[in-house]
Amino acid sequence: MGKIALSLMYDGTYFHGWQVQKNAVTVQQTVQDALQRLLGFRPDVSGCSRTDSGVHANMYVCHIDSDGVQIPPEKLPMAINAYLPSAIAVFDASLKGDDFHARYSCKGKEYIYKIWNAGYRNPFLDGKCMFVPRYLDIETAKFCENEFVGKHDFSAFMSQGAKSTVAEDPVRTVMYFNVRREGNLITVTVAADGFLYNMVRIMVGTYIECALGRLHEGDVTAIIDSKNRAEAGDTAPACGLYLNRVFY
Amino acid sequence: MGKIALSLMYDGTYFHGWQVQKNAVTVQQTVQDALQRLLGFRPDVSGCSRTDSGVHANMYVCHIDSDGVQIPPEKLPMAINAYLPSAIAVFDASLKGDDFHARYSCKGKEYIYKIWNAGYRNPFLDGKCMFVPRYLDIETAKFCENEFVGKHDFSAFMSQGAKSTVAEDPVRTVMYFNVRREGNLITVTVAADGFLYNMVRIMVGTYIECALGRLHEGDVTAIIDSKNRAEAGDTAPACGLYLNRVFY
Repeated sequence: MGKIALSLMYDGTYFHGWQVQKNAVTVQQTVQDALQRLLGFRPDVSGCSRTDSGVHANMYVCHIDSDGVQIPPEKLPMAINAYLPSAIAVFDASLKGDDFHARYSCKGKEYIYKIWNAGYRNPFLDGKCMFVPRYLDIETAKFCENEFVGKHDFSAFMSQGAKSTVAEDPVRTVMYFNVRREGNLITVTVAADGFLYNMVRIMVGTYIECALGRLHEGDVTAIIDSKNRAEAGDTAPACGLYLNRVFY
Repeated sequence: MGKIALSLMYDGTYFHGWQVQKNAVTVQQTVQDALQRLLGFRPDVSGCSRTDSGVHANMYVCHIDSDGVQIPPEKLPMAINAYLPSAIAVFDASLKGDDFHARYSCKGKEYIYKIWNAGYRNPFLDGKCMFVPRYLDIETAKFCENEFVGKHDFSAFMSQGAKSTVAEDPVRTVMYFNVRREGNLITVTVAADGFLYNMVRIMVGTYIECALGRLHEGDVTAIIDSKNRAEAGDTAPACGLYLNRVFY
């Protein structure tokens, strides 16, 4: 008895997010279909988080029960990939204890957000980044990186319409919020013990206001303190967001 | 009187190469269509080279006559991009003398070739790289980088079926052939005063033989000296190739 953890990458352009839905192709269902063809039975596949339609993953972790799986873990990635479309690839599989759960054992996550910041679009990043033609001054917006870090009530950075009916504790601890520019490509890297619904995308939308010079030092702290979604920036588009690492 | 040089990027996945063809969508024709809609007349568009179906460009240069173009060059990229599909973007336009020609004024070109070298495919590089699952040892293959450089008769690195009926001089001068690894991504960068048909792709196919340990120091020089296409490696797939810079 035990669990098998699978680590996968996927290009979210082609999927309506992770979670199985009626009448829409999702990553969970596509992975389940591949496992059914490989194993001869349909295993339950539990993921580390729901991801929205169009969101990508450089590392997404899910698990299945190891019962009935005859293939050794080290051979699983190549075997599963043979049944998956090219938009998904399993790159690691490992045996875990029976108490492992992709979602509940998770201690934190790291996301990256890609912004193409130039007067012209990048054909190779179509659907893989947010396109911002106006110049973003990441030096000026440096204060933003500090103000996001720490344990805060992030209610101002949570979309309504979170799928859970249970009122969620809106306190999260952000470990880092780093921004780097390489030529015209800006990459935001943010890690936290957990994220509220659309939290990264609203943080990025707010960051862009800072980098355009519309918000100044202290403003991000004031927005956090307001606990009011209307004070924060727009929700940045899904296509720039990548789940990058999952910590256990 | 003069010429306008346009620099563009394109994702070659969606096109049957540069040159206008009957019954196939090409980059040249798509750019011409966009210019016609923008300018109100259909200009001739001359490119810096033919590229094969599936080959990409980070920088491709073409020119049109400046006659009748009322829009100032610095405003042209954004104006043309509004009429182009997302797989093509113009990023620069500049006024040149009447003797400028995108192809004949060209002093050299730089290509890059991307290889994803891991046991699993990369969903984000599908159609954008060559996938080689076996480990490539770029340290061992270092000799290859030196043996390609210099002025040589590259007949062994030219495909038959070159579209020209004129017998071409097969002597070319390679300025550099550099290979770099970042994690699982290997990038080959090669510049020359000109390239024979499929020359970069055959060089890369031969390089892979070196990096797999099947060819050794001196072998590349011997292949060049043989002037025999059959001695060189396979032609690497088009999807990994990017025209990267054009020198004038």
